[in-house]
Amino acid sequence: MLAVIWGSPLVEVMRRLRLGKQIRLEGPQSHQAKMGTPAMGGVLIIIAVVLITVVVNIVQLVKRLDIAESVVIPLGVLVAYAILGGIDDYQGFRQRPGVGMLARYKIIYQVGIAVGAAAILYIFVNKGQGLVAVPTVRVLLTMGWIYIPIAAFIITGTANAVNFTDGLDGLAGIISATAFAAYGIIAFMQDQQFLLVFCFIMVGACFAFLWFNAHPAQMFMGDVGSQAIGGALGVVALMTNQWLILPIIALIPVVTTISVMLQVASSQLSRRYLGRDIRPFRMSPLHNHFVLLGWSETQIVQRWWLIGISAAMIGIALALI
Amino acid sequence: MLAVIWGSPLVEVMRRLRLGKQIRLEGPQSHQAKMGTPAMGGVLIIIAVVLITVVVNIVQLVKRLDIAESVVIPLGVLVAYAILGGIDDYQGFRQRPGVGMLARYKIIYQVGIAVGAAAILYIFVNKGQGLVAVPTVRVLLTMGWIYIPIAAFIITGTANAVNFTDGLDGLAGIISATAFAAYGIIAFMQDQQFLLVFCFIMVGACFAFLWFNAHPAQMFMGDVGSQAIGGALGVVALMTNQWLILPIIALIPVVTTISVMLQVASSQLSRRYLGRDIRPFRMSPLHNHFVLLGWSETQIVQRWWLIGISAAMIGIALALI
Repeated sequence: MLAVIWGSPLVEVMRRLRLGKQIRLEGPQSHQAKMGTPAMGGVLIIIAVVLITVVVNIVQLVKRLDIAESVVIPLGVLVAYAILGGIDDYQGFRQRPGVGMLARYKIIYQVGIAVGAAAILYIFVNKGQGLVAVPTVRVLLTMGWIYIPIAAFIITGTANAVNFTDGLDGLAGIISATAFAAYGIIAFMQDQQFLLVFCFIMVGACFAFLWFNAHPAQMFMGDVGSQAIGGALGVVALMTNQWLILPIIALIPVVTTISVMLQVASSQLSRRYLGRDIRPFRMSPLHNHFVLLGWSETQIVQRWWLIGISAAMIGIALALI
Repeated sequence: MLAVIWGSPLVEVMRRLRLGKQIRLEGPQSHQAKMGTPAMGGVLIIIAVVLITVVVNIVQLVKRLDIAESVVIPLGVLVAYAILGGIDDYQGFRQRPGVGMLARYKIIYQVGIAVGAAAILYIFVNKGQGLVAVPTVRVLLTMGWIYIPIAAFIITGTANAVNFTDGLDGLAGIISATAFAAYGIIAFMQDQQFLLVFCFIMVGACFAFLWFNAHPAQMFMGDVGSQAIGGALGVVALMTNQWLILPIIALIPVVTTISVMLQVASSQLSRRYLGRDIRPFRMSPLHNHFVLLGWSETQIVQRWWLIGISAAMIGIALALI
């Protein structure tokens, strides 16, 4: 509710500062109408989450800072990825359309943050064990230092997967809220109180953002939102040890990312070896394929969410049985 | 998933049989485009719920029929109201636009079914006590036979409230799914296994319907859906004894109904006593007021749902503390 209240002024401020979306030449034709919509709406989410999380945890943070049982890691990754995404967004608005932070620098910073978070998770949360819960058999395996690169891959991968998913009004917001709610329930069942609270603060912040992101959107989340949300989701999944089911709970972002990789790989390989450009989708990410098939934006978002929440429920069930 | 699979053929069958929506002269101009959309989509929900509920409960239903601890009452009300709503829908298609079953007969049948269900609840489920849980203080009060008219009012009221809410693509479906999920969680905490399962079958059926009801809708639920869903929701609330929080968990339907009553009362009273027609809303139910204020259909539905799910969470919290 707090985030909803200052959302309208934020839209106005972003409009004045011209933090609007430029034409993305690679998007579907029908998306041209979205030009100029304020596109750093993620700050609405980030500021709300940081403020509320700090207020809720202030006693614990001051009195007894236990990294393993605190929101320090998810909150840290959230803020770090938000800053990274924010710089990217800002450069995109200021320079010519479509040019953000150079891709290679971006990925270096992303991986750097992820490796740092993975190492902290490994040392403080897992006490050097590298834990993974195997769904359905209720077994907690230790995997040693190999955990660090895997965890870093999960954090970076989730950040980019949510980023790819952010392409239709309301899509990334509702899919993220659903995934955080699912891990919130898992954290609740594991008695990880601080993680439960963090997850539902994320859900609430996503809901507030969705108020303004309903089609036709008054703001977009931008990289400042999608990468931060994705990174935090990866960390939360790791902290429950139930990260093997992350591809189920975050089914839509994962499938979306696979669609992008298939499209790029197919195009490049077919051009090199077959001499012609073969692409499995009319346009990637996957949701754009359905835009071009004639589905309405609301139909795609609503149906993707129905698939996503069903998958999330299956994921929760797998984590609990 | 089962319901989604046979949804497309159903749309086709309904089109062939011309079970389409006629122009509703009282609706907003922009809704004229919806003419001809198949409008008995509720049968998708009803048939799925009846089939799956019977299959899931078959052993219990055959071996040991305990009305108090079975799905007989919610399922009975669901089917009875579905038949009533279905006749109403069908008459609406066959006769001239806007004329369904005459209002007075409809309300007599509705109340009759509700009183019957209320009496069965009173005798078999409450064992003649007339129970009501008082939220936050964890007290279960007995109220005697006065329970029967109150319960009948709740069932009839909820049926009509969901009916009023059914006016924008996706609205009644998502609001109903949210309310059933909330009561499903309450039933889970009360260890009412059969009720939990029934609630989530309702959620699943609503989800299946929402697949086809996403804007622009391929089918509407019609009275066969909305009245049946509402009636069943009232019964479920009564069976948890947590019906005092029903106006919170079903906040949107309740507010929508109040808006209709305010509009009608204001119009009639102001015409009689002031000589001019004063109406608080541009058009009732409330969602049409916002359509005329220029909000998009998706914005209204998404925002109503955000309010509705937040209210439902507060309702669950009230029921559990």
